[in-house]
Amino acid sequence: MSMHDLIRSLREPAKTKIVFLVADGLGGLPIEPGGKTELETARTPNLDALAAEGTVGLSTPVAPGITPGSGPGHLGLFGFDPLKHDIGRGVLEALGINVEVGPNDVAIRGNFCTIDADGRVTDRRAGRIPTETCEALVAKLRAGVKVEGVETLIEAVREYRLVVRFRGEGLGDNVADTDPLSTGLHTLEPKAGDAASEKTAKIAAEFLRQAKLVLKDESPANFLMLRGFASFPKIATMEEAYGLNAVAIAVYPMYRGLARLVGMTVVEPGKTLADQFEVAKANWEKYDFFFIHYKYTDSTGEDGNFAKKVEMIEALDAEIPKLRALNPDVLIVTGDHSTPSRMKSHSFHPVPTLLWAPATSRPDLVTTFGERPALQGGLGQFLAKDLMPLALAHANRLQKFGA
Amino acid sequence: MSMHDLIRSLREPAKTKIVFLVADGLGGLPIEPGGKTELETARTPNLDALAAEGTVGLSTPVAPGITPGSGPGHLGLFGFDPLKHDIGRGVLEALGINVEVGPNDVAIRGNFCTIDADGRVTDRRAGRIPTETCEALVAKLRAGVKVEGVETLIEAVREYRLVVRFRGEGLGDNVADTDPLSTGLHTLEPKAGDAASEKTAKIAAEFLRQAKLVLKDESPANFLMLRGFASFPKIATMEEAYGLNAVAIAVYPMYRGLARLVGMTVVEPGKTLADQFEVAKANWEKYDFFFIHYKYTDSTGEDGNFAKKVEMIEALDAEIPKLRALNPDVLIVTGDHSTPSRMKSHSFHPVPTLLWAPATSRPDLVTTFGERPALQGGLGQFLAKDLMPLALAHANRLQKFGA
Repeated sequence: MSMHDLIRSLREPAKTKIVFLVADGLGGLPIEPGGKTELETARTPNLDALAAEGTVGLSTPVAPGITPGSGPGHLGLFGFDPLKHDIGRGVLEALGINVEVGPNDVAIRGNFCTIDADGRVTDRRAGRIPTETCEALVAKLRAGVKVEGVETLIEAVREYRLVVRFRGEGLGDNVADTDPLSTGLHTLEPKAGDAASEKTAKIAAEFLRQAKLVLKDESPANFLMLRGFASFPKIATMEEAYGLNAVAIAVYPMYRGLARLVGMTVVEPGKTLADQFEVAKANWEKYDFFFIHYKYTDSTGEDGNFAKKVEMIEALDAEIPKLRALNPDVLIVTGDHSTPSRMKSHSFHPVPTLLWAPATSRPDLVTTFGERPALQGGLGQFLAKDLMPLALAHANRLQKFGA
Repeated sequence: MSMHDLIRSLREPAKTKIVFLVADGLGGLPIEPGGKTELETARTPNLDALAAEGTVGLSTPVAPGITPGSGPGHLGLFGFDPLKHDIGRGVLEALGINVEVGPNDVAIRGNFCTIDADGRVTDRRAGRIPTETCEALVAKLRAGVKVEGVETLIEAVREYRLVVRFRGEGLGDNVADTDPLSTGLHTLEPKAGDAASEKTAKIAAEFLRQAKLVLKDESPANFLMLRGFASFPKIATMEEAYGLNAVAIAVYPMYRGLARLVGMTVVEPGKTLADQFEVAKANWEKYDFFFIHYKYTDSTGEDGNFAKKVEMIEALDAEIPKLRALNPDVLIVTGDHSTPSRMKSHSFHPVPTLLWAPATSRPDLVTTFGERPALQGGLGQFLAKDLMPLALAHANRLQKFGA
């Protein structure tokens, strides 16, 4: 029996409230050998209090050694095995720029490129044209390309990158990329890998045919390539999987999109974490599960700015009392992955996690929130996907299994 | 390769003795925030000595967040994945009142109920009749119901609940419950879900037809409903799986029954833990594996009696020297789940566990037995089903895997 089948068979209604506060890229590394991480350096009296009263541990987002993108990182936190639920590249790219993707859609990543008179690719990124050029070209495509039998949406991402979304019935996503992956070669035809994707391949071919005409006199971006054809993933909603009426309070589009994939309601979050907590308060009676996303622990880590990441953790800590004042039954503070400033990127390191549930937490000996203390914590080291069943259990939403 | 296949391929005979002392519901929670659990509160010099000399850790019975009943809790300890081996409700109910269930049996839970003149259910629990009434009605059924082609056993459980066991050839257990789950409706016919269960469904229908006649003038319990049809589960015995000649020394019927499911010999246990240890001593040469079940850590937890649970742990501790005196090669003290007095119920919290094997234990830094200390222990946090392979290894019963 799968864990989701088991949960479906055990779940029972409750009035309890669960909050997942996801500090993106929370985990870090020391800069100096033997030094402290960002989280260990930050002054975090409120998180420390939660850690002392609750239970802490370290979450492995996907599997040991695997550095997750935001998609797999969040799927794990939402209780889905990221190795079993693949969110296609096109869908992630679309979500990342706030393009909605639904069950009748195929989302595709596009690259503007340069081709010679013979149609051979001379620059796969069209000299990395500036975003404004990209936007102008996208406007021309919108005006000049009209494929029959499908609703087409085109959006600039940045530089040479765009997103194309086809909406219509019977659009499979098993279509090969048209990027030949090397200059000096012709772009490829969008070729269907199965019968269900023939219609998509035909539509994509016609789209490219028209686009070539529209772009033929442009320079340096006089064509485009499509890759990462992806349908809306078949994944249970939070309601179907857990019986939870879930809301996402996230400022950045990618995370709003990921929340939509699992059926969360997405509400206007305001701008700051304080706004987000206000929105949670205003919606407290309407929902059971609150996904609150905080971006700045990741973006400062990506920038390699240790001090700024520390500051962003302290800013988060300062708002915690507003969240506690809502009296959630279960409050989890974690991240979707680590983003050590020292590495300037996502990493595979386990993520410090705390679970605070006043009625049922079993305390450990840990009194501060940080990577080293978390190693001594009661949650131990665990896979991110195991966190949601624990949250449901602490929220008294699961019956006993067997007699 | 499954773990059981691997063990079968590696196992080798030995004269070593393994003892599993299962303190039911052992794990707990503090009453006050930051306080001690029952086990941490109890004065346990003998368990502490075992913890200091051996290795400790925390056992997750089924999966994170899953609260097990006694069935799945014990299957895990016996080394079987509780998610792969489902013990039907009827079988568990039968085992719970000491009704033996074998390979040719279907065990079923029954409810006495009240129906009106039209046959519609007016009370699904017949006003929760007292147990004595239940016993009297069961006696009438035994005298008045005779179904051809099957051996029928009927036993009162308590209040409105009873167990019916059909014994015969070719009795599948895929039969639907006859409880309509709501008053104002007729009871349902026992309907077979597959061909192999047609005979069982016919027998159950005839049983109900006769029972209705026998009970028709009774009040308030003038009929009964059947649910949880369950066959003896297909599961390896301890001998088949591990080459162990295993004995169960358990006072309560449920645990004797669970032990029988995996082929253990069940012996008369006496009344107290001291008796049980005496019985172990008297049978020491006859068996390789001793399952000794102690109920009172669970029942006091279920009662919400923290002080009494502490006392029951101390009473268990006081008997430990008698067990040590038998010189087992491997002694494991654990529970099948946690039962925090604070929750008055089974819970999902991991179970403190110690493994003491004088020849092969690798000591950790832990010197007392309790939930917090166990977090620092050498066994770490593990799934209950992983304990049995460890026990076999420490008992020198597994060869090297591969060259």
